Amino acid sequence: MFDAKTIREDFAILNQTVNDEPLVYLDNAATTQKPQSVLTALEQYYQRDNANVHRGVHTLAERATARYEASREKLRTFINASSVKEILFTRGTTTGLNWVARFAQEILQPEDEVLISVMEHHSNLIPWQEACRKSGAALKYVYLKDNELDLEQLSQLINARTKFISIAHASNVLGCINPIKDIARLAHRHGAYLAVDGAQSAPHIPIDVQELDCDFFAFSGHKMLGPTGIGVLYGKEAVLKEMPPMEFGGEMIDFVYEQTASWKELPWKFEAGTPNIAGAIALAAAVDYLEGLGMDKVQAYEETLVAYLLPQLQTIEGLELYGPQDAARHTGVLSFNLSGLHPHDVATALDYEGVAVRAGHHCAQPLLQYLGIHSAVRASLYLYNTKADCDRLIAAILKTKEFFHGTF
Amino acid sequence: MFDAKTIREDFAILNQTVNDEPLVYLDNAATTQKPQSVLTALEQYYQRDNANVHRGVHTLAERATARYEASREKLRTFINASSVKEILFTRGTTTGLNWVARFAQEILQPEDEVLISVMEHHSNLIPWQEACRKSGAALKYVYLKDNELDLEQLSQLINARTKFISIAHASNVLGCINPIKDIARLAHRHGAYLAVDGAQSAPHIPIDVQELDCDFFAFSGHKMLGPTGIGVLYGKEAVLKEMPPMEFGGEMIDFVYEQTASWKELPWKFEAGTPNIAGAIALAAAVDYLEGLGMDKVQAYEETLVAYLLPQLQTIEGLELYGPQDAARHTGVLSFNLSGLHPHDVATALDYEGVAVRAGHHCAQPLLQYLGIHSAVRASLYLYNTKADCDRLIAAILKTKEFFHGTF
Repeated sequence: MFDAKTIREDFAILNQTVNDEPLVYLDNAATTQKPQSVLTALEQYYQRDNANVHRGVHTLAERATARYEASREKLRTFINASSVKEILFTRGTTTGLNWVARFAQEILQPEDEVLISVMEHHSNLIPWQEACRKSGAALKYVYLKDNELDLEQLSQLINARTKFISIAHASNVLGCINPIKDIARLAHRHGAYLAVDGAQSAPHIPIDVQELDCDFFAFSGHKMLGPTGIGVLYGKEAVLKEMPPMEFGGEMIDFVYEQTASWKELPWKFEAGTPNIAGAIALAAAVDYLEGLGMDKVQAYEETLVAYLLPQLQTIEGLELYGPQDAARHTGVLSFNLSGLHPHDVATALDYEGVAVRAGHHCAQPLLQYLGIHSAVRASLYLYNTKADCDRLIAAILKTKEFFHGTF
Repeated sequence: MFDAKTIREDFAILNQTVNDEPLVYLDNAATTQKPQSVLTALEQYYQRDNANVHRGVHTLAERATARYEASREKLRTFINASSVKEILFTRGTTTGLNWVARFAQEILQPEDEVLISVMEHHSNLIPWQEACRKSGAALKYVYLKDNELDLEQLSQLINARTKFISIAHASNVLGCINPIKDIARLAHRHGAYLAVDGAQSAPHIPIDVQELDCDFFAFSGHKMLGPTGIGVLYGKEAVLKEMPPMEFGGEMIDFVYEQTASWKELPWKFEAGTPNIAGAIALAAAVDYLEGLGMDKVQAYEETLVAYLLPQLQTIEGLELYGPQDAARHTGVLSFNLSGLHPHDVATALDYEGVAVRAGHHCAQPLLQYLGIHSAVRASLYLYNTKADCDRLIAAILKTKEFFHGTF
């Protein structure tokens, strides 16, 4: 039984007042809070086992190494990768996507094309601008249809020149989920690699990279109950074997001479220097927490929240909701604007009521340009949110409307 | 008054037995232990303030941003940089040095030269191999004289073609400190940039980057009481202005269009994506701890330990100590071999006695090739070590010698 009230007891931070109101945290697409078990994993690692990994024969180093590599295995099962060789620990989604784009840059030719969507987060957009600028390849965009990815247009844009496609699994603004499996089929039919920005999906729905059949899948720990500074880049083993290392240093080498060096096997070839050991271990604790609940139940619970909240938002006069208008097609990321009000004013007013939402361009300026807006308010849900939180959001929006319309 | 006994009470991990012996942790050049205040900083951040930084107007986001940027200011004062614009948070030293080498790669010409030393850690060596391989520039080495950097040879090798010099401040094997200020003068006289690998110096001696006058200075949090996954790359403001961003994504941009983007000002231009917020805040707590003791006192205390330990090591028959033979010139990094014994066997035997040291190539294979050895044992000290720890090391070495010489 999924009980958000019990779950909330694991998140001390939620039990505070902001501006004399109980905090309602609805900024989960930016970062999530951490259960006590994750904080305890951090502290216990540092209080018992802390040592540098891989190179040591002493007891602490062996313990730290075993725990770090067990975390990799935990992340492998979380996304059902076929081998731990395919699990690279990174600083986060941004680093993972930058690595993929730098790999692309090395193999792209001026006649090649890269295909991304207009809804991409800057982290899955600017790296491709750079890869194309430096290689001379063309950066193509697929746009929207009915507030979601235009899959038909995407299928028309893919051709023999398309070498890389990179698409968000779930939009951080529109709250839609893109059909990665279909896109993978299209990509591979044309010999293109498919990279997936999983930052907004991995925390919320079960992920099976073998089922999705993408070549890369990047996600962040801090958006799925884990600490900041750690993430994962999944890559198919055959692809990672072709991909050169992206950072050079200790632990990723076999032999080093003055002018040459050779690399270790996967996955260590990609992990130069001391990794975020504690971060990886705490991320594994976050996965334990999520799997304890069951990712299918997390998804189902968030769906009930969206089914409860989205129709209420739609009834508010002057509120424009972006993305799919059908709750059944919408994730817990709800972006909107209130007619005549600046999103920053709305977010500030909601904060006075203790409701934490984000306002701005959400690192998706080309999407907002496409939508014809400069910024938006975004409320984003996670497993510890409740219908009471949704009620507080609705009440705060109504109060905000009343306040500003009384003022102006 | 510097009292290691009192200090040790802040490090719960030291209070454990390994193989039924009280732990003596002498692997500090690999990573250091964390005081309770650093663990508390991590936990309190996550229990009170956790939110994503820079883009939010809600209360938690403002608190998190203020704390993250206050950490940057703390790090600025720690190395006496002239501006927070010069303090880039990175994953660690390796990432910082890779960024400098990638910057070099973009401006190096085939006729140019890069100068490093044979004592460099792989993280300050392989990135330069790559930069030279891709740019066609030549990678030159300066070697040793009297077990230390040959400054005279270095001054002879620098010429008008030298564009980058990158040198460790303190060797992670030899335990010598290199005269960065002198090297900076030589570098700048010839118009070369000087990058410094500060991983083994920043934790142990006061650092003043303005006094050193280096162009870059990279160091890691985890080697100076901070958490894993966070480090700093210092760069002179004028140089960082010339240097392009190394990662692309959210938070580092001003405006993004479909085909182009413009960057934020320093330091944010270099910090794409969600940073390791908790890591930066906990690193600032580590700096608080170090400054509470006083870096000059940390240095002086370690010097007394070396003065106590090094001569005892030298009296052990068959022990060859690498680096300076004079305790006054040697840092707390003590690398050695025992005649006829494999370093891994020695480290394993010491571990049976509860003494944690490292054995291997210490990510410095070219140095070990130069020294004519395959690997070495390394004991490395930090502020919580005591003379009693030194006695335990000596006793364990003597016991190890006795055991193996009895066996063979």
